[in-house]
Order: sequence, then structure tokens, then C-alpha cells
Amino acid sequence: MEKRIAVLPGDGIGKEVVQGAIEVLKAVGERYNHQFSFAFAEIGGSAYDSTGVPLPEETIKICKESDAVLLGAVGGPKYDTVPVHLRPEQGLLQIRKALNLFANLRPTTYFASLADSSPLRKEIIEGVDMLMVRELTGGIYFGQPRERREVNGKEAVVDTLYYERDEIERVIRQAFELAKTRKKKVTSVDKANVLESSRLWREVAVEISKDYPEITLEHMLVDNGAMQLVRNPKQFDVVVTENMFGDILSDEASVLTGSLGMLPSASISEEGPYLYEPIHGSAPDIAGKNIANPLATILSAAMMLKVSFGLDEEAAAIEKAVNSVLDAGFRTGDIMSEGKTQVSTTEMTEEVKKAL
Amino acid sequence: MEKRIAVLPGDGIGKEVVQGAIEVLKAVGERYNHQFSFAFAEIGGSAYDSTGVPLPEETIKICKESDAVLLGAVGGPKYDTVPVHLRPEQGLLQIRKALNLFANLRPTTYFASLADSSPLRKEIIEGVDMLMVRELTGGIYFGQPRERREVNGKEAVVDTLYYERDEIERVIRQAFELAKTRKKKVTSVDKANVLESSRLWREVAVEISKDYPEITLEHMLVDNGAMQLVRNPKQFDVVVTENMFGDILSDEASVLTGSLGMLPSASISEEGPYLYEPIHGSAPDIAGKNIANPLATILSAAMMLKVSFGLDEEAAAIEKAVNSVLDAGFRTGDIMSEGKTQVSTTEMTEEVKKAL
Ligand SMILES: CC(C)[C@H](C(=O)O)[C@@H](O)C(=O)O
Ligand SMILES: CC(C)[C@H](C(=O)O)[C@@H](O)C(=O)O
Repeated sequence: MEKRIAVLPGDGIGKEVVQGAIEVLKAVGERYNHQFSFAFAEIGGSAYDSTGVPLPEETIKICKESDAVLLGAVGGPKYDTVPVHLRPEQGLLQIRKALNLFANLRPTTYFASLADSSPLRKEIIEGVDMLMVRELTGGIYFGQPRERREVNGKEAVVDTLYYERDEIERVIRQAFELAKTRKKKVTSVDKANVLESSRLWREVAVEISKDYPEITLEHMLVDNGAMQLVRNPKQFDVVVTENMFGDILSDEASVLTGSLGMLPSASISEEGPYLYEPIHGSAPDIAGKNIANPLATILSAAMMLKVSFGLDEEAAAIEKAVNSVLDAGFRTGDIMSEGKTQVSTTEMTEEVKKAL
Repeated sequence: MEKRIAVLPGDGIGKEVVQGAIEVLKAVGERYNHQFSFAFAEIGGSAYDSTGVPLPEETIKICKESDAVLLGAVGGPKYDTVPVHLRPEQGLLQIRKALNLFANLRPTTYFASLADSSPLRKEIIEGVDMLMVRELTGGIYFGQPRERREVNGKEAVVDTLYYERDEIERVIRQAFELAKTRKKKVTSVDKANVLESSRLWREVAVEISKDYPEITLEHMLVDNGAMQLVRNPKQFDVVVTENMFGDILSDEASVLTGSLGMLPSASISEEGPYLYEPIHGSAPDIAGKNIANPLATILSAAMMLKVSFGLDEEAAAIEKAVNSVLDAGFRTGDIMSEGKTQVSTTEMTEEVKKAL
């Protein structure tokens, strides 16, 4: 198979972790006889530094000409004084729109070897296997108007939560499709007792569920969802929700199993290419020190192989390699615990390659 | 002291837990020589059953003529088919508006005797003492327009997040005032990298902080806030945020210490009366069985004594009584664990009265 991958390292530890994933992809390519080529492009603060904007046209072009996109992370304190519309994270919001990435998929998985680094008790998280599906290009992130106003001589401000029915439909349908291949349960999270948009969301969920008689649909209010994630995360299989609720709940979910530095994500569109990235940030405080954990990005590459290229065996090989490296006791600083062997970013990458 | 308290039992276990708090208030009145009188009124589903609306005018009148309001809980599956604008929880939203309850205060406290019922590890929650201040009468809960629309022949839906500057000011100022009496730290939670309303929120927070040089102000993005609550809740003292973020984060916070059935809340206004209620819901499944935990409502009554009536000593006496009853091993079903003595709602109330 020949595939072209756009690589957007971004800022902070982005460059280092992306490098780890590229090496693992190359190793997989050699072993399974695939040709992966890599086209580098800029995003975030480093794009702003060299071009004046956080998402140059050139980057969009390179992404669109590729079969998949691998992103590191964006942002850093250096850009705190840059005008809001030029900040690194605007690059993220813009690329979602430019590539029409309407759904963000975030697995939260339990790694037995990392249970001790979770803030939760082992019996609460043991076996957690959940997939959060977040709407990514609509809602209050993009609705108009969003502005300051003068109302009766007073300063006021407005943001708008806006959805069209088909935006809701496609992401919920996606959640049901994913549930088919998993534990056959969809939890749709909304705030239907307060928001009109949530009432429509719930109606659409009920309607779409009729096409999936084998899948159980459950509705949950977002405040209850935030509680249930902590109380009993094992109850969840696929969770689907709108953009802002998804932002909050998926970050909450990401810390449950103690493996924030391990979690990948995929953002998908109707036409492709899809975008893959670790869920952690750019961690400017540890950037350039060769100590960041590359596993979330390496696992994002595995997701790419599976979801974008249909290379299930190759993806499973990476996941197995990561697990065996953890079982062998290798840890980067973020997941280090007593009795384990602390390794650098490049050493961790080497171990994964060896284990392949 | 003579005080009149409006009592709104509401639905489900509301009636039972409110009864517990009334008895404790009466006992405190006798012991400290205060006259508390109680004026009952309806709200929620039971109000709908008897009057056709979830918040009758008569209830608002009774509240306004009282020095404080004690609420049980509202809601139940019985009302699932009632039109949205007449549902029990609309009674809650309406009374917040009617009494101008602009800030909801929710302490999350660690009870050493309940540590085992927390989903989190003991070392993460030991000593947690946090106060969440949630804006309660603005934001996306009440902004206009909130409606279905046809846009280019397609069905669409809109909700509006709207704030005036002085709504933001008063709740943030409240948070700073409360921080003065605590650990002198305010964490203001927003989503300033996406929402214009959050940018104004942040500006206002910075401005108000200038009046409180002794208080440390920290800004935190809401997604990070949802993570930090689980990872390291001890870092927080006073947390202040807008209505919807507060709804989500305060429910998340409430399950951290394993004492959901123990947590009180106060909703305050500029002119009074304030409203006090347990943070748990109406729990229709266990209603009428005399097994609900009355302690959150009893502790809400303690908050009333302290915050509305300035009766610090009496409030402390209730809190001490509750702690000693827990230390003595008495537990309602929700917080029961091995080796403890399971008691009913009325028995628990008796124990607190005895311990006073
Ligand atoms: C950086 C920010 C705009 C972004 C978001 O809110 O979507 C981030 O939190 C995320 O979840 O990818
Ligand atoms: C019942 C509902 C409308 C309410 C809210 O969202 O404010 C509840 O969740 C709460 O927090 O008191």
C-alpha cells in the first residue's frame, strides 16, 4: 500500500512526539511492505512565527493532497499576547473547519500497567473501554453572532449555539455505526431540560436509533454525565455529544484511567483525509528535553492505520508493541512509578520499534 | 431571634428530607432560644398536580414574605410526558429568576468517615475543601433567542449565551468576598480561547481582583477544570464560573468525596431571601420509604443559620452533631458500608437531634 501522510508537528513537544510516531510508522511500513511518505506542514504558534497566521493556506493544501493527517500539539505561553484570532489554537479550530472534521473520536482505555497512576480506585476503572464521539465543527464554537453589544447603555456579550439538523444527524449516525463494532450501546448526552438545541438533539437521536434496532440508546443530562464518568465509567460504551459538552467531558474522561499521555484521537470527515492527534497538549514546560511521552501519538498513528487505511493487523501490532513495552516496565516521566525503568522520548520509541 | 422560613418540599424524597431539617431547626430553636416558624408552599411536580404549574404565584409570595427558603427536590418520571414548560424543573429555573438568585454556592467537603465511599483514592481527596460559585440567573439558561428555525429550507436550532457586564461582576465579586473568609484563592473558569462571553468574563475577573490584593486569582479553561477536579481537587479554594459550566462542574465536584447525599447548597440574591437545598435530586425510586439521607438538607439548614441569620454558633453545632453521628457509625443506605449501623431517615434525624 502507498500512502501519503501530512505531518503537522505544531509547537512544544509536538515535534518530538510526532517524530516518534513517524519512526514507528516507517518500521511498520518496512515490516508489512507499505510505502508511507510524509509531507511536513506548519500549524499553530510555529506557523504564526514563520507566516503570521496559525493555519497557512499551504498547510490546508498539503493536508487535502494527503491520505491522512498526523498532528502533534499547538500552543504555548509565548503566544499569550498575540491577538486572539491569530493564537495557535485558532489553527486547530480552523483546520477542523477547513477539512470538515465533524466528529472527534476519543477512546478512553484502561491500561492495567498504569492503574496506579489513576486518581480513581482500581475497581472503578478496571476494564473501562469507552469511546467519546464529539461533534467538532458546530455548536457554540462557530455560531453567529458572537460579539460585544451595548444594550440599554450597558455592556453585554453574546455567543450563539447553532446547529442544523443534518449536522446533528451525521455525528449521531457515526456514533451508532461505531457502537455496532463495540458493546452496542450509545449514550447521548445533552441538556434537554434547558436547551432547545438539546431537545432537537434528543429527537434526532431517537429517530436515528430506529435504524439500529440492535443498539441500545440511552439519554443522559450533561451534569449527570459529568458525575457518572467519575462514579462509574464502566457503564459507558459509545458516548455522543455536542461540541462544547464534548470538549469538557472528553477531557474529564481522559484523566480517569491515569493514562492521559497514552490516549490518541481521530477527527473524521465525510470525504477525508482524517486527522489524528494525541489528546495531550503541547506541554511547553518540558519541550525540547526529550522526555515527553510519545505513546499517545504512536497510538494515534495506529488509529490512522486502522481507521483511514483499513490496516487492522498493522494497527494491532503497534498496540501490542506498546502494551508489551509497558509490561516490560518502560516509562516516560509522566507515567513513571516506583520500580519501573525511566526512559526518554527517543528511547521509548526505540523500545516500541523493537517490540514490533 | 424570630425567623420565618418558607418550606418547599417538592417531590420524591423532598418531603422526607425537608422534614428532617425542620426537626433539627426546631431543636436548635429550643436550645438557643430562637423562634423559627415554617410556611409551606408547593413547587415542582406536586405544584403542577395541584395547580397546573410548577411554580404557583402563591409560592413566590410566601417566599418573598419569608426570611429564607428551604427547598427539598423536584422532579420524577411521572412528569416525563408533561409539556416542557410545565415540567417540575421549570419550577426551579423560575424560582431562581423570581427571587433573583444570581449565585449558587456549593461547598464540596471531605468527610473522613465517608472516604471509603468515594470513587477516588483517599490521598487525592483527603482534606478537599472547595466552594463552587455558579452564576445562576444568566447565560445560556435564559438568553434569547432560543428556538427552532428554518434556514435555507433546513431545520436549525439556536440557543443564546447572553450576559451583561454587571451580571458577571456581581457573581465574581461574591466569589472574592467568600475567598476572603477562606484560603484566599479564586479560580475563575471560562473558555476564553473560544467564547467571546468568556473573554469578557476574564476581563471582569481581572478588574475585580484589583480590589482584592490579598486574594490570588487564577484563570482556568473549563476543559482543564473538568480534568483538574479529578486529578487534584485539593488545589481549589473558591471556584467561580458561568451558569452552564457551573452546572456541569459542580455536579462533577459533588461526587469526588463520596458524599453526594451530604452536600448542601445556598442560592443568594442581592435583597434576600436566600434559598437553601441539598444538591441531590428527588430520587423517586426511594421516595416514601423512609430511607433517604436527610443530612444534606440538615446541613443546608445549617448553612441557612450561618449565611442568612448570622447564627454561626448554631450552624457549627449542627455540623458538629452531623460529624459525631457519622463518627458513631450511623449511616443511611446511600453511604452504608461494612461494620456501620444502617438507619432510616427519621432515625438519622433523631440521632442528629440527640447529638446536638
Ligand atoms: C484549543 C481548544 C480550542 C480546543 C477545543 O476547545 O476544541 C481543545 O480544547 C480541544 O479539545 O481540542
Ligand atoms: C434541573 C435543572 C434545570 C438544574 C440546572 O441545570 O440548573 C439542575 O441541574 C441544577 O443544577 O440545579
